[in-house]
Amino acid sequence: MTLQTPFAQIRDRSLFIDDVDAMDLVKKYGTPLYVMSEGHIRHQMQQLKDSFMDKYDNVLPLFASKSFSCLEIYKLAQEYGIGIDCVSAGEISIALKAGFDSHKIYFHGNNKLYSEIEYAIAHDVDHFVIDNFHEIELIEEVASKLDKIIYATVRVVPEIKAGGHGYIQTGHKDTKFGFSARNGIYISAIQKIIDSSHIEFEGIHCHIGSQVFDLYAYISTMHRFVNFAYEIYDKLGVMATKINAGGGYGIAYTKKDEPLEFETITSEIMNIIKDGYDKRGWPMPMVLVEPGRYVVGNAGITLYTVGTVKEIPEVRTYMSVDGGMSDNIRTALYDADYDGVIVNKAYERKDTKVTVVGKICESADVVVKEIMVPKPEPGDIFAQFSTGAYHYTMSSNYNQLPKPAVVFTYKGKSKLVIRRQTFDDLTYFDVNEDYK
Amino acid sequence: MTLQTPFAQIRDRSLFIDDVDAMDLVKKYGTPLYVMSEGHIRHQMQQLKDSFMDKYDNVLPLFASKSFSCLEIYKLAQEYGIGIDCVSAGEISIALKAGFDSHKIYFHGNNKLYSEIEYAIAHDVDHFVIDNFHEIELIEEVASKLDKIIYATVRVVPEIKAGGHGYIQTGHKDTKFGFSARNGIYISAIQKIIDSSHIEFEGIHCHIGSQVFDLYAYISTMHRFVNFAYEIYDKLGVMATKINAGGGYGIAYTKKDEPLEFETITSEIMNIIKDGYDKRGWPMPMVLVEPGRYVVGNAGITLYTVGTVKEIPEVRTYMSVDGGMSDNIRTALYDADYDGVIVNKAYERKDTKVTVVGKICESADVVVKEIMVPKPEPGDIFAQFSTGAYHYTMSSNYNQLPKPAVVFTYKGKSKLVIRRQTFDDLTYFDVNEDYK
Repeated sequence: MTLQTPFAQIRDRSLFIDDVDAMDLVKKYGTPLYVMSEGHIRHQMQQLKDSFMDKYDNVLPLFASKSFSCLEIYKLAQEYGIGIDCVSAGEISIALKAGFDSHKIYFHGNNKLYSEIEYAIAHDVDHFVIDNFHEIELIEEVASKLDKIIYATVRVVPEIKAGGHGYIQTGHKDTKFGFSARNGIYISAIQKIIDSSHIEFEGIHCHIGSQVFDLYAYISTMHRFVNFAYEIYDKLGVMATKINAGGGYGIAYTKKDEPLEFETITSEIMNIIKDGYDKRGWPMPMVLVEPGRYVVGNAGITLYTVGTVKEIPEVRTYMSVDGGMSDNIRTALYDADYDGVIVNKAYERKDTKVTVVGKICESADVVVKEIMVPKPEPGDIFAQFSTGAYHYTMSSNYNQLPKPAVVFTYKGKSKLVIRRQTFDDLTYFDVNEDYK
Repeated sequence: MTLQTPFAQIRDRSLFIDDVDAMDLVKKYGTPLYVMSEGHIRHQMQQLKDSFMDKYDNVLPLFASKSFSCLEIYKLAQEYGIGIDCVSAGEISIALKAGFDSHKIYFHGNNKLYSEIEYAIAHDVDHFVIDNFHEIELIEEVASKLDKIIYATVRVVPEIKAGGHGYIQTGHKDTKFGFSARNGIYISAIQKIIDSSHIEFEGIHCHIGSQVFDLYAYISTMHRFVNFAYEIYDKLGVMATKINAGGGYGIAYTKKDEPLEFETITSEIMNIIKDGYDKRGWPMPMVLVEPGRYVVGNAGITLYTVGTVKEIPEVRTYMSVDGGMSDNIRTALYDADYDGVIVNKAYERKDTKVTVVGKICESADVVVKEIMVPKPEPGDIFAQFSTGAYHYTMSSNYNQLPKPAVVFTYKGKSKLVIRRQTFDDLTYFDVNEDYK
């Protein structure tokens, strides 16, 4: 059992997150509960600052906010001066409501709607990561109507296959994202941007996948992207003054995972770009990276109360908790592995192999596929680690379970960031209308 | 392309649902839009009545409301006199708010919480499908405290493997649901119920899986359950006066699916039980069935607007729509197949093979894996069929996409049943609290 964050420890017969006793959080806020260590988040954001922003000129890390999106996280990102990548007008609306600087928002997406482009541009979001030809036309139309200039990076398919589950690999050629580098397709896209009156071409963007542990994938992608920059210059006479190297940095969910150091990845990226641009005598372009899971993944711990424990002789012991695939779809969807601990038995011998399941009426409802715990009993508190990314943002009300609260912890204190839903909330959007 | 419901037709150059032009629905309510044919739902509920309730004495179909749960559907179920199965206190709360008769609610779940049991019993829900020993203790405690009597059916594992995707098979021995029939485990459970002062044993419940097309699975399960009834009587001297035969009836998503007739399944079930009980000279027990998807699955049609169309030469054409895995997780989670049509090109030649994807920033975001359509363009309206079950109830705000509206159609009219979420709704549960 490894906690994957220095901001949580097993000590004094309990689990402490930012020096807050998890059992106190359970008493105060109930379960299931998403706990986010602000200590960990700040530590990761500080690292983006120290080992990237402060280390190099003209760089910007963007927090990939689809991993964890709420008012509070955008306020933190703003405080550290980092940018964000948003994948919808909904995300942008939350960031702006949190007071986030619109000029540090990069708008992503394979199918940005006209209404979203309009919303973004009207709210002074001026950096777009452009995915397709149709989008260029929409942006030009809206930017022209609103008399704004949009700065474009062009998403080019790296054709590098990397990352964990098949579902979260985005860089190979069969992908809905970006422009192909084959047959000069991305060159035509850049030409179209250059020909637009309200879009300025700045550079190129790549993303090779999620939960990536392979440094070579980053290295070979960057070499390819330097060549793309050459090709752009040679064919169109414009320089890529911005390279967005994407994200996908794998974190450790269990001890089997061996994450790369952020600094290792970024220094490889910077070196390859520098060498490549030096060779042509070009000035260094602005470089962006897009960590999401890296910032928040290990910050999250979900606290559950154990209910039914069912031992099926010679088959398996099922330990049920009071949440499930409604608050954690990752186990079922990506076959994801997790670690965890029974908080109130943190010091007892782990002699029972269990499958942690939820309370959803469905066989897919698995929380942790297999884990050793002390003999579990109803009322025990189970802490699932590394649930900070893609848990809250992917949560549903399946089985009409109210969504858990989100609590932040920091320096021995806690605060509610997203309140627990009630039964009344479950019909908040129901209306009683007559047929017309 | 088969529509799977007689309440929708391609005619007059459009798609009509309950005689409402889908293009008019798009204009009125926007996209993405969940459309539910009330005509189809009523037809299915009427069938439960005609070919089950009115055909046999002492039977009750329960609508498995996890498939589609909102105020309106419980009102419809109530109107037809059918019962419902609820899998959480949240579902029960919505049903009661809709005016549903608490005595026709059957409370399911592998991990009912103390608070849920208390909520249910306090609100006069008195039928429980008991899943485990721990639950018996909780029910006895609460029922005794509130001075109520609870009627129990005991969920027994049939150890029959049936149904579609591995994730939705629940009847085999490695399952979190129910009591094993091995080593007399379910017999001990019934003994414990008999020994309880506030729980009355009524019978047994089985569920073999979801999206089942295999009649033999139902037949062999029922034979097994008749034998369970014998064993219960022989060992404990009590008769199972209630048999809940579960649900899982497969529906057609594409023309490859060959669903069984509801009447075929239920008449096999009734015959086997009758023969079995006759042999012992017993009166016929009350028989329940639990259709969910069967009632609402084919009633649903999701309307999307097409955005980006991306042709990757020699690989695939991606047609993006304005929703995705946030409103339809089934394609990614269960590898589910669907059919559909481009509404405004319903009469054109389907000469283009596309993969329908959403606008979510993730490779898993597939809506329809492969489908032939006329050459798609931005602005086209794509209708995905058979989205009535497990779409709305499993929906999330992933990528901060507001949830679509749910509209019912009936006899040429439409009404809003669940309103579309706004950007402001996305932060409705966020709070601004200081650290304490």
